[in-house]
Amino acid sequence: MDAPSGCAWPPTPDFDSWPVEHLPVEAATDGRIVTVTWDDGRVSRYHAIWLRDNAAEPQTHSPVTREQVGHPWDLPEDLAAASAGVAEGGNVQVTFAPEGLTVAYHPGWLRTLDYSNGPRDDLGNIAPTCWDAGSLEAPPAFDGTAYLEDDGTLLAALEALKEFGIVRLRDVPTDEMAVQRVAERIGTIRNSNFGFLFDVRTAPMESRKSADSNAYFSGALAPHTDLATREYEPGLQLLHCLVNTTRGGQAIYVDGFAVADHIRRTDTALWRAITGIEWTFTNRSPATDYRWRAPLVVLDDAGNPREIRATTFLRGPLNVDSGDVEAAYAGLRAFQTLAAGDRFRMTFDYAPGDLIVFDNRRILHGRTAFDDASGERALKGCYMEREEVLSRIRVLRRAIRATSAI
Amino acid sequence: MDAPSGCAWPPTPDFDSWPVEHLPVEAATDGRIVTVTWDDGRVSRYHAIWLRDNAAEPQTHSPVTREQVGHPWDLPEDLAAASAGVAEGGNVQVTFAPEGLTVAYHPGWLRTLDYSNGPRDDLGNIAPTCWDAGSLEAPPAFDGTAYLEDDGTLLAALEALKEFGIVRLRDVPTDEMAVQRVAERIGTIRNSNFGFLFDVRTAPMESRKSADSNAYFSGALAPHTDLATREYEPGLQLLHCLVNTTRGGQAIYVDGFAVADHIRRTDTALWRAITGIEWTFTNRSPATDYRWRAPLVVLDDAGNPREIRATTFLRGPLNVDSGDVEAAYAGLRAFQTLAAGDRFRMTFDYAPGDLIVFDNRRILHGRTAFDDASGERALKGCYMEREEVLSRIRVLRRAIRATSAI
Repeated sequence: MDAPSGCAWPPTPDFDSWPVEHLPVEAATDGRIVTVTWDDGRVSRYHAIWLRDNAAEPQTHSPVTREQVGHPWDLPEDLAAASAGVAEGGNVQVTFAPEGLTVAYHPGWLRTLDYSNGPRDDLGNIAPTCWDAGSLEAPPAFDGTAYLEDDGTLLAALEALKEFGIVRLRDVPTDEMAVQRVAERIGTIRNSNFGFLFDVRTAPMESRKSADSNAYFSGALAPHTDLATREYEPGLQLLHCLVNTTRGGQAIYVDGFAVADHIRRTDTALWRAITGIEWTFTNRSPATDYRWRAPLVVLDDAGNPREIRATTFLRGPLNVDSGDVEAAYAGLRAFQTLAAGDRFRMTFDYAPGDLIVFDNRRILHGRTAFDDASGERALKGCYMEREEVLSRIRVLRRAIRATSAI
Repeated sequence: MDAPSGCAWPPTPDFDSWPVEHLPVEAATDGRIVTVTWDDGRVSRYHAIWLRDNAAEPQTHSPVTREQVGHPWDLPEDLAAASAGVAEGGNVQVTFAPEGLTVAYHPGWLRTLDYSNGPRDDLGNIAPTCWDAGSLEAPPAFDGTAYLEDDGTLLAALEALKEFGIVRLRDVPTDEMAVQRVAERIGTIRNSNFGFLFDVRTAPMESRKSADSNAYFSGALAPHTDLATREYEPGLQLLHCLVNTTRGGQAIYVDGFAVADHIRRTDTALWRAITGIEWTFTNRSPATDYRWRAPLVVLDDAGNPREIRATTFLRGPLNVDSGDVEAAYAGLRAFQTLAAGDRFRMTFDYAPGDLIVFDNRRILHGRTAFDDASGERALKGCYMEREEVLSRIRVLRRAIRATSAI
């Protein structure tokens, strides 16, 4: 069904669309609340202040920036809906007192944003599907060129990334800037003290004498997250294999949420340890001194894992109540032993052109040791934030909705 | 007192120093705990696993990267301290079973890191001093050239920034890259969809037809934080005035923590509203669609304000329980009315060369309207994270400690 004419919302046609699936049959007000009855019998109740704040009219929302230019705290304290009705075409029309302003509300918009009939998800998060080595043998894979050139492939890859926390692009061109092009298909890159882009590569020993990270050597790296020393660990990491002729250096990836969930289901004391006892993470460089305190698994308000904090080779001395010390180590041992074990660990060889994108606050990454005399190994990487993924998904879905409506 | 010889910690001399103010007189172990008695009578108790994990020896910590290369989860489960004693020079020496490894612990380090005699602050945060227009007339001011060239001035400015949430550098050179030089004295810049550096300047009307922010127009901007649409609001913002010959456009800065604290002390219902009811913040651009839900004031675990979330002109439609709608608006009205009022609002004119650095998750900023026909107005800005400030403070203090020890 088309939007009725005279509808001022949405302010521009290329943004969210508000399909009209039901029309209002009646609208009435007691001054404080506007009650709308729909053609399927639903009754929605909107507060006058809510309607006035969301008025699609130029004194409230700028037609150019789409941002508010009028503010609810500047409205009269005795603001009320003086009258409400259904206008021709299906708009709900409300006149506000004491202003005398009349505003039309688009029925698709009004129905979608109804908050009086239960909670509504307005972020559009994609719930994680936890995996172990048995349920996910390899990261969901996408062709690198298709990812770079086709929005449908990009959207599918980002949806898989949100769900599994990891995707693998194949045959991405192995030039030094490709990882930036892949990142910028999503959004902005996060700068860090390791640079805008960073290199993890075999190098002459001479240049490593002042190296600031174990990653720059050839030893094994236990599964870990990056930058737990920061208030906000990077939400996303990209690692692009440019060259790999060395023996060893297998990729290791582990779903930290799955490991945490396993501990939650099997051992209450360990669960308390990994979610309740804070480690101090410290960076050890002449130039920077980042520090942060957090448990290995940080929970959200609902008690589910929100992020894994496990740059375990950047742990500073544990600084907690004496009674928690042994529990903290037991939790760390359980978590890391599970993460490194066959049940949870996904392993594969990096091929040149492979580009792994993963949620650095969920997926642990590591590698087996490699023999750096046996060849050359070069990864190029960068960090981003999780929110860039969701923003890009929303924008891509907008475009697909707009196309399918034609 | 000098460090005893043979001490392996700290691994390099330019990092943290561990002054020896007390020496151990006795060390003993029951296998699980090493008990150290100091020359002032203090008794400290260290777990064997804690000592082993923190061993300053090359199988545990890389002498090059200073990161852990040995991990506690790889140690034998029956690890114990087989013997402990005080060595010549004051090191505490511990031999571990079943490994047979003997490790020396520096007395200054061991005493500082004692966790058995009450909690220890290992982050070195600087507590905020809340201010209003009566207690702080203008931001603490520092000479821009001194800030750029002298580490003592830089440290003093950053300490003031942590305490008050805002500092003003004067007479910073008004070239386009100066804000980047000022930022990089602290640390890395945070990229955003507005760019690595961004401009807020008077512009021909033509170029504003597709502007994505109210900031690009000449209207008043109510006190606000930036980017509440992101999971992590930028912790820091820098605004550098290059030119200002317009009438109006006065700077407004407000300590959001002080406003929150005032509400906490005066109105329980409003406090619940601003700290407990989530607004949805949404960005409205053809290219991005960032969204986040948060209350206006986000509390830390201790119940104190951790951050202000008040990009109020990026509020999406309120999406909460019907019973909370009017309370949410009452809280918003109270918060923004106080923030815009004379009691809390600091105002001043930007002079060319002024560069304001402020905590974007604490300090609200805004401006009065200006007449863009009356002249030219150009601000250049960028974002950073709070942690960059603390890291730089710690590194500068290291250097000062090292110098004063000579």
